This record gives sequence, structure tokens and C-alpha cells, in this order.
Amino acid sequence: MKTYNTAFPYFPEEDIEEILKETREILCGNKMLTMGENVSEFEKQFSNYCEVKYAIATNSCTSALEISLSSLNLKGDDEVIVPVQTFIATGSAVLKVGAKIAFCDVDDDFLLDFESMKKLINKNTKAVIMVHFAGMISKNIIKIRDYLKEKNIVLIEDDAHAHGATFGNLKAGNIGDLGCFSFYSTKIMTTGEGGMITTNNKELYEKCASMRSRGMDINYKGELFINLGSNHRVTEFQALLGLHQLKRLEEFLQHRNKIATIYKNALFLLIENGAVRLQEPAKDSRHAYWRFIVFLEKHNRDKIKEKLNLLNIKADAPYFPLLHNQPVFKKNDKGKYPNAQKLSARHISLPIHMLINENDARYIIQELIGLLND
Amino acid sequence: MKTYNTAFPYFPEEDIEEILKETREILCGNKMLTMGENVSEFEKQFSNYCEVKYAIATNSCTSALEISLSSLNLKGDDEVIVPVQTFIATGSAVLKVGAKIAFCDVDDDFLLDFESMKKLINKNTKAVIMVHFAGMISKNIIKIRDYLKEKNIVLIEDDAHAHGATFGNLKAGNIGDLGCFSFYSTKIMTTGEGGMITTNNKELYEKCASMRSRGMDINYKGELFINLGSNHRVTEFQALLGLHQLKRLEEFLQHRNKIATIYKNALFLLIENGAVRLQEPAKDSRHAYWRFIVFLEKHNRDKIKEKLNLLNIKADAPYFPLLHNQPVFKKNDKGKYPNAQKLSARHISLPIHMLINENDARYIIQELIGLLND
Repeated sequence: MKTYNTAFPYFPEEDIEEILKETREILCGNKMLTMGENVSEFEKQFSNYCEVKYAIATNSCTSALEISLSSLNLKGDDEVIVPVQTFIATGSAVLKVGAKIAFCDVDDDFLLDFESMKKLINKNTKAVIMVHFAGMISKNIIKIRDYLKEKNIVLIEDDAHAHGATFGNLKAGNIGDLGCFSFYSTKIMTTGEGGMITTNNKELYEKCASMRSRGMDINYKGELFINLGSNHRVTEFQALLGLHQLKRLEEFLQHRNKIATIYKNALFLLIENGAVRLQEPAKDSRHAYWRFIVFLEKHNRDKIKEKLNLLNIKADAPYFPLLHNQPVFKKNDKGKYPNAQKLSARHISLPIHMLINENDARYIIQELIGLLND
Repeated sequence: MKTYNTAFPYFPEEDIEEILKETREILCGNKMLTMGENVSEFEKQFSNYCEVKYAIATNSCTSALEISLSSLNLKGDDEVIVPVQTFIATGSAVLKVGAKIAFCDVDDDFLLDFESMKKLINKNTKAVIMVHFAGMISKNIIKIRDYLKEKNIVLIEDDAHAHGATFGNLKAGNIGDLGCFSFYSTKIMTTGEGGMITTNNKELYEKCASMRSRGMDINYKGELFINLGSNHRVTEFQALLGLHQLKRLEEFLQHRNKIATIYKNALFLLIENGAVRLQEPAKDSRHAYWRFIVFLEKHNRDKIKEKLNLLNIKADAPYFPLLHNQPVFKKNDKGKYPNAQKLSARHISLPIHMLINENDARYIIQELIGLLND
């Protein structure tokens, strides 16, 4: 019986051959193990893809978030607004740089809620992190961006789920002041472990690039350290994977959107009768579909998830617990986030990746529909 | 004309074949890209090698130092003593975790000076970092360890240069409370980028392992985050390199010691007449010889270094500037470190690694002797 995994990395055979050939060159000593041409080429091609001026490869998206926040020189009273529906790193990065976290509720698409955000803003608010959860960019992103710009508050995109997502003619990573991508092994494209910072701001770029390399003066030839940084670099092998995955990204996104369309079309009747609801991206946007989220409006989510798992359909429900309920934050938070609480008890995420083909998708969605009609 | 590099990674052909075979398995999806069996096996074998109970693989030695210090819960007034002759990370890690740095002078071996250290200790001193610079363990290490133990001050080894160095029957990484290794591409063994924490203390181990993985509760099955951490993990590919390099470590160390013996024997007369001085490890210890340091007592170091470089002998003089003179620290330091200042104007480091054979070593040392006798 086939297992339909939540996520799975994918390297086509011809890419594997090329990667191994290059890896041999690295191991033989003909090319660098780290700090060589692959990393800078990956940064160049990734910035081109996102249509931003600068990109900085890091060892993880967690590091990318930490470096981005560090580059803003936040002090102890400074606050950063973070949605409660997100991975731990979006929040821990704020504490790591010594700033305060202000948790925010989400809207019906599971994305940072504009109205809740406005209420949280005060004189200490220095940045807002928007998470393109599951790969969807908020319908309100331009309104939020303009609102924050007017108040001189930095907008950071958490693009961990959103490689290649678009809003109008803007690519993810090219909307906020800084963008932070993940190349972890479950992501749309992977380097095993890895991340990337994108920005159009030269000053922030130079600061982030320096902090990625232990605070080194990147414009000086020797080893002078002018900022407080760490070693957040990636190896040449990781960058090599990144280059090959980036070359395939459009193909990956088309596939994911094809699978999503099968899921959506099949769910049509259940959506009509209100049993099921989906994220609703804006018309002129592209969802990256890192995850295909289904909100079950009338069924017991845990039971449905359990039954799907018995069929080897690895449906899950990221993230649990919600951020403010993680032990590391819990003691500092007294807020209530009704929409996030409600939605996170109702959503499931269906397998969607390169190893889920159209027949798999039809099987998976029919099984789900069967369970919902049961 | 052959170039004699300062450092060079080395993977024998048979290891390359095995690594590529395993890498294919990873890329095909038969094995994990990250968080799989290679990392845990590497940790296990490395702890066995160092004869410590626990080892935690990290993305760099910088991270290893930061995590080690984080595990001590240092507060704003807490001080950490650090020698001024070391790489930036030994110092930046202290500031990164929000503690104060107390710079310390070095002894004639370029290692933390016991007497200077004693003078720096006060009620706020929480930890001391000893750097086994160039691969040598201090003659005073046991005295220092016992002195600190009595005062309840943590001893951290910076083992970046000292894989396999020994003192009596103790291996580097098994002397202090915590040990921090580097597997950067210039090091005795390499994973491209990478590091390792070693300890015998279960409590510190659990804290460090958690902080390496974003503060996760490592004894819980789901994703609960109980500490403030980051993503400091390495990929399976890096661990694969580490496993192969570790298997070769004794061979690497024997080779380095053989080259060092050639250098030492050839310098005999110059040592006798006081023109040259070497580090002097204790009789029952093993120098790891990451670098072969020569103190030029009567010559102009910069001129000798320049002349060697013209012969394609890449002699260098790590680290410049000394730690307290790095811009990121400079404003906080008013100390004077006379021995470090004196020695760092006099030392050079000769090429020593797996691609320097015995004939290369004889050539290099004869050229140096020629220049010194000129």
C-alpha cells in the first residue's frame, strides 16, 4: 500500500548525475567545500528569480529571520508583531535578538489579520512579520505594506512556504523590506538545511551579509569584524542543490498548482454546501501550495485526520500548538486569538509535492470526500 | 611551481567513492537529507573518539561556542574570560549570549596565561574559554581546570584546532566542562562547515541539544519548544563527510606530527642559537599540529613571511588583529596584553596538512632556514 507523505524532497535523475559530478570535483579539491562559486551563483540566481536586488544564503530560515531582525538594531522595548499561526522560528527569532514579541490573530485565510495588527501597533512597534502560510500571500499585503511604510515600521516576509508565490506582478520576497526563505528538506525547494534573505535595501543587505559571516567587514580584504554576527553560512554542496532546485522551481510550482486544482475541483460540492472551506488567494496572485489546507467546517478534524492516516494518507495540521502556546512563549502572553484558535481546530493539510501525481491526488481527494460524506 | 597552501581539505579516492554512493541514496530519497542516521552516528563516533559521554553536531564551531555559553544561562553582568590570541568567534559568542567579555593575555606558548587569568577572576566570572591554539593543549590545563572547579567557574575548551590532541590520558574535548570543535574546510578534519559540542554533563547536554534544534524538548515526541534556541543543525551530507574524516583522523594526526618533526629537527640549530622558538607541549601530550608555529626571535617576521610567499610557501600569522583590536570589541577594551602583542609580531605558521609530503616539508624548512641565515 502506497504511503502518501506530507512532504518529500525531489531531485530528478539527470540533476542527481550533475550534482554528483560536481560533488566529486569538490571532494577532490578542485572546487571549494564552502565559500565558493556555487553559493554566490545561487544568491545571484535566487535574487534574479525573486526580482530583488540582493540575496544572502544562510544555513536556515531561522537564521535568516534572526539576521534580518538583527540588522534592524532592535532594543529591549522594541516590539515585533508576529502571527500566532506559524512555525516556532518566526517567534523565537524575535526573542533571540532581544526584542519583545507581540502576538497577532489571523484572518480567515490563516494569515496575519490586518485589523488585529493595527490594534497592536504602538510607539515601540519596529517590525511586523507576515507569514505566507502554506504558500498564500495575504489579500491585504499591499494595504498592510503601505500602512506600515507610512508609520516607518519594517515589513519582514516569512517566505518559508512561499517560493515563487506572487501577488500581482510582485514575487514573494520582493514585497516587504526583507524576505526570509527556507530550504529545509520538506520545503518547495530544498538544500537539506538552508535559507535565504532577500532585500532591495543596500544598507540592510550589507548588514545582513556581514552578520551572516560573523560580522565581517564585507568591503575589506582581510578579516576585520565590525558587527556582532555568527557563522550562518551554507556549504557549496548545499548551494549546488539549491541551484538545481531553483532551475526546477517553475516546474514544481506548476505541478503543485495542478494537484491543488484537482483537490479544489473535487471539493466543489462540499464547498457549496458549507462543509469545507479553502484559503482564497486574490485573483491576480499565485499560491505556491507548499500545503493544501482544507478547513472542515462541520466535521471532527482529528477523526478525519486519523482516518486518512489509516489509509496511509499523511494529512497533518500545522502548527500545533499555536505559537503563543509554545512553552518558551507561554509565560509572556495573556492574549486571546479567537480566529486562530477556531481555525487551527478545523484545518487539515493534504499531501502535495512532486511525488504526488494526478492519480494519487484523485485517490486522496476521493477518500477525503468519502469520509466527509460518510 | 608548486604552491604550498596554508591548509587544504583531503579526502582519499576510496572515501570519495563511498561518499558519492551514499550521497546518491540521499538525493534519490532513500535516505534523509537532514536529521537522519549519519548525524547521530557521527555524534556517537565522535563522542567515542573523544572519550566523552555526549556529542552534539552543529553547523559551525561558532554555533557550538554560542550554544555552550547559552546553556549556562549567563546574565548581563556575568563575565567570560577569553584569550586575545584566537579567532573572532571565541569572543563574539560571549557578546552574542549577552555576557561580558574579559580579555586575557597569553603565555609563551600563545595559550591562555594562568597568572593573568587569576587576576581577572571576580565574583561575576562564570566561565573561561581555553583555546588550544594551533593544536597545543596548555601545560597548565589541569592546574587551571582544578583552580576553576574550586571556584565553580565553567571551563570551555575551544577545540577548533585540536582534534585528537591529548594531555596525559585526556583527549581534547574531555578536559573542560564543554568542548567546541570546528570542521570548517581548513581544519584537521572537515565537513565543509560544521562543529561539535562535547560534554560529560547530562544536564548541559540536554540543554545544548535542545538549543541546537530551536529549543525543542528533545524528550517529547511532538514539536514542543521549551528553550530559546535556533537551527544550528548540519545536513546528512556533512555528517557523512565527518564520519569519513573521523575514520582518518589518527592517520591525519600522525602525518601532521611527522611533518612537524621534520620542521623541528631542521630548526634545531636556530633554536639552539635563539633565533627561533617553538611551542613546547608537555612531554606526555600530543600536539595536533593544525598549524606549525615558529616564533622568529631575531628577524623581521613580515619580511620573512613575504619572502616565503614569493616562493609560493603560503606562510601566514593567525590571527590578525588580536581579538581585542577587532572593531566589534575595541570600544569595550582598555587592557594591555604585552605577551600577546609581542608574540603576534613574531610568529609565522608553516604549511602543514595532508597534501604537504615529507619532501615538501624538507623543501619548505630549508627555504625558511636559508632566509633566516641570509
